[in-house]
Amino acid sequence: MSVLAVGTVAFDRIETPFGKRDRALGGSAMYITMASRFMCDDVRLVAVAGHDFPEEYIEDMRIRGIDLQGLEIKPDELTFAWGGRYHYDLNTRDTLYTDLNALSSFNPILPESYRNSKILCLGNLDPVIQNSVLSQVPNPSIVICDTMNYWIEHTPHQLKNILPKVDCLVVNYSEARELSGTANLVSAARIIQEMGPKIVVVKKGEHGALLFAEDTIFMVPAYPLEDIQDPTGAGDAFMGGFAGYLSGCNHINLDALKNALVHGSAIASFTVEHFGPEGLYDLTTADIERRIGAFRSLTAIPEAVHQQS
Amino acid sequence: MSVLAVGTVAFDRIETPFGKRDRALGGSAMYITMASRFMCDDVRLVAVAGHDFPEEYIEDMRIRGIDLQGLEIKPDELTFAWGGRYHYDLNTRDTLYTDLNALSSFNPILPESYRNSKILCLGNLDPVIQNSVLSQVPNPSIVICDTMNYWIEHTPHQLKNILPKVDCLVVNYSEARELSGTANLVSAARIIQEMGPKIVVVKKGEHGALLFAEDTIFMVPAYPLEDIQDPTGAGDAFMGGFAGYLSGCNHINLDALKNALVHGSAIASFTVEHFGPEGLYDLTTADIERRIGAFRSLTAIPEAVHQQS
Repeated sequence: MSVLAVGTVAFDRIETPFGKRDRALGGSAMYITMASRFMCDDVRLVAVAGHDFPEEYIEDMRIRGIDLQGLEIKPDELTFAWGGRYHYDLNTRDTLYTDLNALSSFNPILPESYRNSKILCLGNLDPVIQNSVLSQVPNPSIVICDTMNYWIEHTPHQLKNILPKVDCLVVNYSEARELSGTANLVSAARIIQEMGPKIVVVKKGEHGALLFAEDTIFMVPAYPLEDIQDPTGAGDAFMGGFAGYLSGCNHINLDALKNALVHGSAIASFTVEHFGPEGLYDLTTADIERRIGAFRSLTAIPEAVHQQS
Repeated sequence: MSVLAVGTVAFDRIETPFGKRDRALGGSAMYITMASRFMCDDVRLVAVAGHDFPEEYIEDMRIRGIDLQGLEIKPDELTFAWGGRYHYDLNTRDTLYTDLNALSSFNPILPESYRNSKILCLGNLDPVIQNSVLSQVPNPSIVICDTMNYWIEHTPHQLKNILPKVDCLVVNYSEARELSGTANLVSAARIIQEMGPKIVVVKKGEHGALLFAEDTIFMVPAYPLEDIQDPTGAGDAFMGGFAGYLSGCNHINLDALKNALVHGSAIASFTVEHFGPEGLYDLTTADIERRIGAFRSLTAIPEAVHQQS
C-alpha cells in the first residue's frame, strides 16, 4: 500500500554535545518518508520549500525513491528553517529560532495521483492544513496523525475537530498529558481514544513507546545505544517506520500494530546514531531486521527458571 | 536460599495528590523483606528502631514471616522518621524532613544465625555500615547493593571501596549517571561494572528497569497502572522481589536475573497501587503470577505479520 506523508521540509540548525550542523536537510515529511521507504516502494511526500532549497537535497530524497510530485517550491519564499540546541543528556532542547518562511502560507493541493493514498501520515502541522489534506484523500486505510503542544494550546477546537477522522494519534508523553488534561498515561490514552483515535501511540524518547489499541497495551523500549549523536527527527522517523510497516500488511490488526511499533523504534534508533537524516541514507533492510532481532532479545522474558521446593 | 536485608525501618509521612499518611510503617529493610517473602520462606531483617516503634508494626512484619532477630530496639532513641510530598505527576517529590534518630548510631551486629545468609541485600545506607554487614556474612551467593546520591557525593571513597565486593548494584537513573560521571546509560553501566559489580540494575520508575549483565541488556517496563496512589518504597520492593526470585534459583544465571527483574517490577507495581506497604499486606503469589503473565503480553513481540510481496 502507498504511504503519503504531509509535513515539512526544512533547513535544520542542530547543536548537540557531539557536534553541529547548519542548514542540514530536515523536516517531518522528509523524515517520515525517508523512514517509510525501507518497507514501502510507493512513498509520497507533500511539503513546501522556498527557492533556496538546494537541488542536492531534492536528489537526496529522489534517489531514495521518494515521490516528490507533492513538493511545492515557492519561488518568492525561503525554506522553513529551525534551529535547536540539545542539553547534555539529549533529553531536552532549546529552540534557537523558528523561521516559518514558505510554511506560513502552506496550502497543499495534492497531485491527482496522490488521492488514492492508503497510509496517510499527517505530520505535525496546523490542524487546518491536516484537515485539508484529509479531505483530499477520500479512502485511506489508516490515518496516522502527529501534533504538538503548540496546536493543543492555540488551536484546540481545530485539533479536536479532526481527531474523529484520525485512526491513530502519535504523540509524545507531555502532549498526551496536555491533550487529555491528566497526568496518568493510561487514563490519558483512554481519554484521547474517546476523542476519536482508536489507536494511541505515546512516544517516550529514550524510554521507548507505548501502544494503546483494542483495550491492549504494548510497549517497546528505545534501543539502548552507547553513541547517540542527535535526536532530531527520531519521532518522525519512528512514525515513518510505523507507517511503512503497516503498508505491507494485508490487515491492520493488533499484531501488525505491535510489529509496526517495533519497526518504528528500530528506525528511530538508527536515526539518532548520526546527525540529521544521515543515519537513514545508507541503511539496509538487513540492518533493520538485525536490530528487530536485538529488540526481541532485549525484552523477551525467558521461561521461569527451575525453583527449589 | 535465605534472604537477608539490612536497611531501615521508619515512620513515614507521605503526601501524594491522592491522600496522606502520617507515621506509616516505612523503611528500606521493611519493604525489601515484605517483598521478598512471597518467594522465600527464610527472610531476615537487620535494622534499628527506637522505643516509640509500635508493637503493631512489629507484628505486621512478624505475622508475614519476617525473621526479626536482627531488629534492634534502642530504648533511649526515637525511630528514624521521613516525610515526603509528591508532585502531581508522582515522578518527583520534596523531602519534608529526615530525622535520623536511632539510625544515626546504627552499628549492626548480626545474630549468629544470620551469618550463613545467601542472598545479601544491602539497602541504601552509609557504605561504612554496608561494609560492616558484608564482613559479617562470610559466604553469600550474591551481594545486591543499593545506594543514593547522598553517599555518591559525600562518601565516594567508602562507596567505591565496597563496590568490588558487590555482585549487583541496584540504582536509579540519576544515581547511575552521578556515580559513573556520564549521561549515557549504556556507558554508565559499563563504567559501574568496571568499579566492581558485574550486574547493574537501573531503575527508571514509571519507565521500567534495565539489567546489564554478561554483555547483555534486558529491559522490563513498569506495569502501566491507571490508579497509582503512592510510589514510596517501590524501589525497595523491587529489590526485594528481585532478591526473592533469585533465592529460589539453583543457579543465578542470565535467565534467572531476567526473571528476577520481572518479579521485582511486578511487586513494585502492587506497591504503588496503595499507600505505604499496604499493597503488600494481602498480596498472594497467585496475584503476582497473574501480573507476570500481564508483563509477558505487554512486551511480547508477535511473529512478523504476513507482508504483501
